[in-house]
Amino acid sequence: MTYKAITYAISFIAIMIILTVAKASAQTNNQNDVNTDSLMVRKIYDEGLVHGESYKNLQYVATKIGARLSGSEQELQAIQWATKMLKEIGLDSVYLQKVVVPHWVRGAAEEARIHSSNSIIKLDVLALGGSIGTNGTLKAKVVEVRSWKELAQLKDSDIKGKIVFFNVALDPREIEVFKAYLAVIEYRASGAKEAARWGGAGALIRSLTLSQDDYPHTGTMSYDEKIPKVPAAALSTNSADKLSDLLKKDPELMVELKMNCETLPERVSYNVIGELHGGKYPDEIITVGGHLDSWDIGQGASDNASGMVQSIEAIRLVKTVLVRPERTVRVILYCNEEHGSRGGAMYAAQSKLAGEKNIAAIESDGGGFMPNGFRIDATQPAKNNIWKWSGIFKPYRVSEFVEGQWGVDISHMKHQTQALITLNCDDQRFFDIHHTAADTFEKMSPREIALGSAALASMLALISQHGL
Amino acid sequence: MTYKAITYAISFIAIMIILTVAKASAQTNNQNDVNTDSLMVRKIYDEGLVHGESYKNLQYVATKIGARLSGSEQELQAIQWATKMLKEIGLDSVYLQKVVVPHWVRGAAEEARIHSSNSIIKLDVLALGGSIGTNGTLKAKVVEVRSWKELAQLKDSDIKGKIVFFNVALDPREIEVFKAYLAVIEYRASGAKEAARWGGAGALIRSLTLSQDDYPHTGTMSYDEKIPKVPAAALSTNSADKLSDLLKKDPELMVELKMNCETLPERVSYNVIGELHGGKYPDEIITVGGHLDSWDIGQGASDNASGMVQSIEAIRLVKTVLVRPERTVRVILYCNEEHGSRGGAMYAAQSKLAGEKNIAAIESDGGGFMPNGFRIDATQPAKNNIWKWSGIFKPYRVSEFVEGQWGVDISHMKHQTQALITLNCDDQRFFDIHHTAADTFEKMSPREIALGSAALASMLALISQHGL
Repeated sequence: MTYKAITYAISFIAIMIILTVAKASAQTNNQNDVNTDSLMVRKIYDEGLVHGESYKNLQYVATKIGARLSGSEQELQAIQWATKMLKEIGLDSVYLQKVVVPHWVRGAAEEARIHSSNSIIKLDVLALGGSIGTNGTLKAKVVEVRSWKELAQLKDSDIKGKIVFFNVALDPREIEVFKAYLAVIEYRASGAKEAARWGGAGALIRSLTLSQDDYPHTGTMSYDEKIPKVPAAALSTNSADKLSDLLKKDPELMVELKMNCETLPERVSYNVIGELHGGKYPDEIITVGGHLDSWDIGQGASDNASGMVQSIEAIRLVKTVLVRPERTVRVILYCNEEHGSRGGAMYAAQSKLAGEKNIAAIESDGGGFMPNGFRIDATQPAKNNIWKWSGIFKPYRVSEFVEGQWGVDISHMKHQTQALITLNCDDQRFFDIHHTAADTFEKMSPREIALGSAALASMLALISQHGL
Repeated sequence: MTYKAITYAISFIAIMIILTVAKASAQTNNQNDVNTDSLMVRKIYDEGLVHGESYKNLQYVATKIGARLSGSEQELQAIQWATKMLKEIGLDSVYLQKVVVPHWVRGAAEEARIHSSNSIIKLDVLALGGSIGTNGTLKAKVVEVRSWKELAQLKDSDIKGKIVFFNVALDPREIEVFKAYLAVIEYRASGAKEAARWGGAGALIRSLTLSQDDYPHTGTMSYDEKIPKVPAAALSTNSADKLSDLLKKDPELMVELKMNCETLPERVSYNVIGELHGGKYPDEIITVGGHLDSWDIGQGASDNASGMVQSIEAIRLVKTVLVRPERTVRVILYCNEEHGSRGGAMYAAQSKLAGEKNIAAIESDGGGFMPNGFRIDATQPAKNNIWKWSGIFKPYRVSEFVEGQWGVDISHMKHQTQALITLNCDDQRFFDIHHTAADTFEKMSPREIALGSAALASMLALISQHGL
């Protein structure tokens, strides 16, 4: 061995030792991080499962305030209640963000009847949110279609002056009901304008549910200013089947529809915001939120008192366990999600104007049933960080991380933050009650609500401690 | 290169080619198998989700037959109904297996009251299954314990003549409620004999639930022939908290308990069995089953009309999709699971006597909520085969395979089959209603029931086509 060779060998050994020690140290640090994080998450769950407040709060919002449509007195009650709750938690600041919202009212209950060869049959019906009324009674023949394609294939004379009945069912073979819902949501959103485009006098939509029952499901719809406005309503699945059956026997039957809804002048509403300032990086912000409005029937317990109380509980859990997180955590209770999403839009616009540094926006609007993971839309580095944590969530059965998110309120933050994250919940029960009179407190489970709160809090805490 | 070297080289190349081709062919076969299996499972789910009958059957059993305690007329009605349903499916044979079962009856509703310093407070109470009655009224002081250890530390005089109140709560920090339940089930099972061992006059048990409400949860208990029998009953969690609070203020308070239950002479009951003979290996048997009895309150919808109708549906789905499976599939509706498990014991004993070749025994008794996978107790080769299929179950969200199973009816087959398999369901809602008057049809979801049926049918079909 030459002197040079010996020098090389020693250098090589030294480098290897340095690398090995560095790697071991990094592993130890990583392991320490994981242990610290796991312990933090365990503490969050323990607090949430033993002293959780979200189910009690859900009961209050659902049964004491009840349905709280955008622009209604109940929406204002929800705003006052949420403000009070956030102040009781002892956050660093709690404030309102003004939002002007649409004010649509249903009026007296809708009525719908089939008039067919001497028999009159009642249908279970609900106006879609935003629809015009019938201005008295609309009585017209009905043309049934099962797709846009079927509508396109009709002659104008098949449609003119008739009510177009969009009898489009969700696909029961789809395992995730949310996907089946999204696949046909356009019939509710655009049925009225597509009917009117060809001279239709109104639109009836089969309710967007796999459930076979008498509950009509409302939801938002929109008009096109260039096309005449016609009334649009949803039929329960049982009523849709009844109408379809009778149309086969008597294509000339008439449906009589009476809807008293109308759009009143816009009103002032508010997003409710509370925050806990970061101890180390106060200008870096992670938000969690749900919407405080609901449709005007039932109690809006699942949609979305669940997300509202879970978001409040999430920040309470973070405060209880971390006392002072490293980054700022902020809870937002959005107004007007159901009927315009102006709350979410206003929050994003104000945050942009203020030049805020948003790390992540988390939302809970998936129904409040058993949480199973998160849906995530994020930059690649953010994704890498988030996915590393899935093991921490595994013991809590909420480790299924899926790409692509469906939250409406946080969607406005798409280009202003590194990650949009929604809590993913089991959805088998959600669309049975979604936007119906059956969305009531007793459909919800105390454990499922508490587990969702703790999952949100854990994600909030991890991002607040590590960034993305 | 020598001639020998060339010969070696050629041999080597030839062997490599053979190995490569064989491997590719095996992979193709495996891939074909996976594709065929995936297609079969997809067909089972499609049939179950589009034309499923389990929810409709659940409604019948829960609301038309109702609670069906072992030895009751309703249990016989369930036996008749199940026989009829299996015949309608067109199985190769449907028959009854005689089982002599205990016949315990509750009698007139129980009553319990706290007598404390001039106030009388009603408690919500249910006798435990198998308990003796109070033979008039039992009025005694109460001693509260929170563990066996606390009981052991008491002096005999602290217990003698008193009612021992086992106020042992489930641990809310446990994510799987079933585990929290199993951790404290011994207080219900053995509370009466442990109280009586030290001279106690009776036992009151805090209901085995995380739910905070007024529903007492019954369930089976047993006596020791060497220890005097004393009455045992469950208090709702609200009543347990009330009693505990009052005992702190007034340790001398008395509880008055009136229970009219009694054990009558044993009765003849039956397991209902149906089978579809295997086309290729008819002597190899895979079973699927649930129990047809329930407790005598509520409707036994979750426990276990769900498992009963899912098992019937599972064999219907296998017959519809496979027409003739390779191995014999058999459905068993077990009697007397809740109060003695003699149905399961009899089935195993008869199968042993007949020298049957059992491949696997599958059970559904996990509550009938959202299925998430299977719990499996199997030989190593069987496990290897089953775990290979988890990918096939993944699109259906039921791919979580866990070692160790908790099914009572199939537990008797432990040494007679290669695999014991139970459907694992989400359990957050199960123990809110388990063994209570609140276990009713409307707590169940049509989709969850149908998804469970299809999961059972898929496992049944895979084993019937491949063996283990």
